[in-house]
Amino acid sequence: MELMDFCRYPIIQAPMAGGPNTPELVAAVSNAGGIGSLAVPLLSPQAIAEQTEKVRALTRRPFMLNLFVQQKPAPAARQVSEAAELLRPLWEPFGWSELPKPAKWCEDFQPQFDALLEARPALASFTFGILTREQVDSLHRAGIFVVGTATSVAEGQAWQAVGADAVCAQGIEAGGHRGTFIGAQNQGLGTMVLVPAMASAVTIPVIAAGGIMDGRGIAAALALGAEAAQMGTAFLTTDESGIHASYKERLLEARDAPARAVTRLTRAFSGRYARGLVNRFMDTMEAVESQIPDYPVQNALTGAIRAQAGRLNETELMSLWAGQGVSMVRAMPAARLIEQLVAEWRSASH
Amino acid sequence: MELMDFCRYPIIQAPMAGGPNTPELVAAVSNAGGIGSLAVPLLSPQAIAEQTEKVRALTRRPFMLNLFVQQKPAPAARQVSEAAELLRPLWEPFGWSELPKPAKWCEDFQPQFDALLEARPALASFTFGILTREQVDSLHRAGIFVVGTATSVAEGQAWQAVGADAVCAQGIEAGGHRGTFIGAQNQGLGTMVLVPAMASAVTIPVIAAGGIMDGRGIAAALALGAEAAQMGTAFLTTDESGIHASYKERLLEARDAPARAVTRLTRAFSGRYARGLVNRFMDTMEAVESQIPDYPVQNALTGAIRAQAGRLNETELMSLWAGQGVSMVRAMPAARLIEQLVAEWRSASH
Repeated sequence: MELMDFCRYPIIQAPMAGGPNTPELVAAVSNAGGIGSLAVPLLSPQAIAEQTEKVRALTRRPFMLNLFVQQKPAPAARQVSEAAELLRPLWEPFGWSELPKPAKWCEDFQPQFDALLEARPALASFTFGILTREQVDSLHRAGIFVVGTATSVAEGQAWQAVGADAVCAQGIEAGGHRGTFIGAQNQGLGTMVLVPAMASAVTIPVIAAGGIMDGRGIAAALALGAEAAQMGTAFLTTDESGIHASYKERLLEARDAPARAVTRLTRAFSGRYARGLVNRFMDTMEAVESQIPDYPVQNALTGAIRAQAGRLNETELMSLWAGQGVSMVRAMPAARLIEQLVAEWRSASH
Repeated sequence: MELMDFCRYPIIQAPMAGGPNTPELVAAVSNAGGIGSLAVPLLSPQAIAEQTEKVRALTRRPFMLNLFVQQKPAPAARQVSEAAELLRPLWEPFGWSELPKPAKWCEDFQPQFDALLEARPALASFTFGILTREQVDSLHRAGIFVVGTATSVAEGQAWQAVGADAVCAQGIEAGGHRGTFIGAQNQGLGTMVLVPAMASAVTIPVIAAGGIMDGRGIAAALALGAEAAQMGTAFLTTDESGIHASYKERLLEARDAPARAVTRLTRAFSGRYARGLVNRFMDTMEAVESQIPDYPVQNALTGAIRAQAGRLNETELMSLWAGQGVSMVRAMPAARLIEQLVAEWRSASH
């Protein structure tokens, strides 16, 4: 199968772990002729099966599952208590006497991977790390089209070497977590450079990601040598997106006050660099960012704070993931967004 | 006059102060159907007149002059001696007992501006700051098409408000100095986001800059809403570029070892953020970067070190300005590069 056999339009809704990525959003995008993606890295094997079934109940079209390639950490007790201490200015005002201990640092990758194989989505994408050739082979045996995430040409070549069917080139503009697994996570290339460099360096199809917000961006991505455009931020404000109402409001405000909609890469929330709207959580942690433990330890530790921020409608303490293109978000049903994107893309291609 | 009345192809060779920007390069680009630009911010009014005449002797086609909008600083003696001290690890190994004092911090802007008016280029572009409406009017009375450089939508709108005829949207991928005059110089948007956001926010033509290295990039820039693409790094390695031979070699090496061709924004050389290949000069100054005086003081102070580096062929101490797309540079005459760019652009547009 070729990438474009899975969709009518070269538009992939980016996997977005946590709130945004409802089965309704995934199905709406796939039904409208794009490829919807369900991010399942925070889910148990059982929940992966259940969520996949929910998508299947809503669409017969191909869709993508996405996992973080991660290892279970074993942090020293002292590192954990120091990290909790660094977060004190954020949780103490809640009246808490200590930061609640997370039940686990993260899901085990192998059972998640087995659940994904079992779920047999048409496509699966991976980020944060790289699979072995054996793992890619097992996906192929299950008939799954494999997409690797790369933030540099070297990472794209590594994915091609283990047998991936396509590479998603994630430019520095992208919202949410960096997929980097070689070198510094915060030194990536802009989409304008990464996509053509990648297209020249690999023979597998390239999917462009980062800063693509409308049909002009899709046309640009294809001109740069990509076969499809992957868009996350643009879908955050669709009706089907499951993010917190106050988070959605912050994104929509960005249209009217673009200068205030400043995004930054930060390790503050999860221990891995990710791009989001600048808020008090980021600013508070900025000075100590180099002392924060790596993903997933920091991510697990901040979970209770982020959950409490949600209950209190306090966007200054939520992770407000967003790409640099946030000032171009639009609120509408996902199917209508796809329709508009296609119309804009066709007009920008002439 | 419309922007595209000045050229056959939507390709502008970016102004690059210092070595690269020979009259031969400017004329070759204009003769080949693009718009050549001569950066004159480091030149005296007399030299501006002379260099412009040299271009005119080589082409009858329109070309662009470029100036920094700058004010003469009056740094305290102690600030200057402290800045020289910060640079000691770089100049002491030359055997110098002290850092030579620069003859002046920078040229006076008003006499430069008057010389530009006198020289009457078809187009003039400005960066680092913004002109007044009166200054723009005086350029218009001289028949000069005015281009303002902007790194954010707010800066583009400010240029439109003072009457500029076009705005050059400089994405974060761009090599050399940031044109920022509102807010942080190192927090800019990628070209993929800045260009469509700018095209939606202003009514004057947008010129896309940053990371455009080939015809795919030109096609992408136009799809994003730009009327033309401005390219600097791509012309650094042309035969007519006047950069140091060792600097050119470093750029060409980037094609074969893209992973080593890492660029970074730094204030180390000039006091204003600029992107170049990472080298020892940058690394040495990184820890003290926040203590460096602003442009042009630092630029004047490092002049002697950079000149000595040139005499010694020591690229680790030169400013090796380059954009993120440096791994896609090509060595050939500028006219042939334009020819190839046009062929690639046409093929990428289909």
